[in-house]
Amino acid sequence: MSVLLFGFGGVGRTYAELLYERTDLRIAAVFDSRGGAGSKDGFTRSEIRRLLEAPRGGVATSGVGRAVTPDEALDFCHVVVDVSPPNYETGEPSLTLYRKALSRGLAVVTANKAPLALAFSEIAGKRLYYKATVMAGTPLVDLLKGLPPQTVLRVRGILNGSTNYILTRVYKDGVPFEAALEEARRLGVLEPDPRLDLEGVDAAAKLVIIAGTAGMPLRLADVTRKPLAPLGPVTRYVALADLVERRASVEPVRLPPDDPLHVDYTMNAVEITTDANAIIVKGKGAGRLETAYALLNDTLRAVGRL
Amino acid sequence: MSVLLFGFGGVGRTYAELLYERTDLRIAAVFDSRGGAGSKDGFTRSEIRRLLEAPRGGVATSGVGRAVTPDEALDFCHVVVDVSPPNYETGEPSLTLYRKALSRGLAVVTANKAPLALAFSEIAGKRLYYKATVMAGTPLVDLLKGLPPQTVLRVRGILNGSTNYILTRVYKDGVPFEAALEEARRLGVLEPDPRLDLEGVDAAAKLVIIAGTAGMPLRLADVTRKPLAPLGPVTRYVALADLVERRASVEPVRLPPDDPLHVDYTMNAVEITTDANAIIVKGKGAGRLETAYALLNDTLRAVGRL
Repeated sequence: MSVLLFGFGGVGRTYAELLYERTDLRIAAVFDSRGGAGSKDGFTRSEIRRLLEAPRGGVATSGVGRAVTPDEALDFCHVVVDVSPPNYETGEPSLTLYRKALSRGLAVVTANKAPLALAFSEIAGKRLYYKATVMAGTPLVDLLKGLPPQTVLRVRGILNGSTNYILTRVYKDGVPFEAALEEARRLGVLEPDPRLDLEGVDAAAKLVIIAGTAGMPLRLADVTRKPLAPLGPVTRYVALADLVERRASVEPVRLPPDDPLHVDYTMNAVEITTDANAIIVKGKGAGRLETAYALLNDTLRAVGRL
Repeated sequence: MSVLLFGFGGVGRTYAELLYERTDLRIAAVFDSRGGAGSKDGFTRSEIRRLLEAPRGGVATSGVGRAVTPDEALDFCHVVVDVSPPNYETGEPSLTLYRKALSRGLAVVTANKAPLALAFSEIAGKRLYYKATVMAGTPLVDLLKGLPPQTVLRVRGILNGSTNYILTRVYKDGVPFEAALEEARRLGVLEPDPRLDLEGVDAAAKLVIIAGTAGMPLRLADVTRKPLAPLGPVTRYVALADLVERRASVEPVRLPPDDPLHVDYTMNAVEITTDANAIIVKGKGAGRLETAYALLNDTLRAVGRL
């Protein structure tokens, strides 16, 4: 069983290391933004080590394996693992790769939210594994899949750690909003394109994935978004999907002190209201290691090992 | 695909109704404490209605189907669904039924904690579905299975709703302990054998199941138990599994006001500490409807429908 690794940044590299440390599965093709390398029988440990030592964008020139395209790699891989950056305009190139892989019966494991945020109901199914896209360290997707035939009525969440970090600095630590923003930028808490955090795109994408899993297919454009703003104590950046009224939003909201959704800094929290229960889940969002762990768990499921 | 329903009390009846309302799966054999009835092609809707109208213990004399033994029923059923009461001495008769069913390649779906509490590492595997045994309304088991290769270091939980109801009446509502006990007994919040709640057997069984799922095989007898007692504000009846020190206990503990484990009345809460995360999950434990929902979710998985 071999893996087509699509993306070779921080998460992709951590995933590759974990896969070789913890399993006997092999990566047979790897792609970064500049090209790909493949080896039908899977890369050896020493080949993976050389790939890990290559600079960013250096897969094709690393001298490991032979030059391959993703289409070629689909012929000799069993699982596509997507750790490429999200493209919220088109979902590409991932979306096309998923369609090809799924239509051939391959499994797709992904940490990339964009294809799901744009085409959840088209691509979701038994061969698509995506727990790494939402609260990767806290397998919310698995919990959600265990709920039916409970009917989810509402989901409310703090789904973006970066903006919650900023709001916690403001309302817990007394840092002015602009200074907290600047600090988050400096510490790398914000995405390289900070609008994904500050305008709610990242949280909205996660909300689409949660709502889809809970039975309400949405597209990213269906989510009303208001940018992050400090509205007074204690503002949280709240993602809300009302599955009864069929509407979804991401916006800053002042929460009462006893609201169960409060979490500090980069932690995430979700409240799931069903016809039979009210569930709270709190935990880490997606650091590099947690995301790689979630991808590995899904990979092992995809090949029937878990 | 047909179901062998082992037990026909409140949960079993609710499950049977749901199965026929929501799916095209059929029950082909049903057993209560006095006997069983079977029908190779599965009971029709009207046969199920007649079984539901039969009094407790009246399956064999209902006139529906023909008299069968569990062994005979294993020949024409695909999934065993166990909703019989727990026998914490031996796990029987369920444990023997599971062994036979699993060895023939059948799936077992269970809400009965005893066989798992006594023989988790023997029987757990891909064909055993048990999310209904622990926080049935809040699929904790599914979340736990999504964690590896995260390593669980510690689990701390309020796993027994009945005792938490009593403690909440005492420390939130100011009711004396003995009066709260009596009230819980009167309202049916306590198990028919209240020692299962008050001496921590129920919580310990759940802890064994959680610890086993998280990678530490335990037996019920390995869990140190102290009976429920009001130790002062705010006492909670806390189940703790330390997977590093390899010890487990259920005992009354005074928790500081800001401990994340606090929940009121019959709600459950669990804190899972891993090498990469600290997760809090709060939600309902096991009412009749939530348990039947969890069993149905697991049944649909067992037959490949989810």
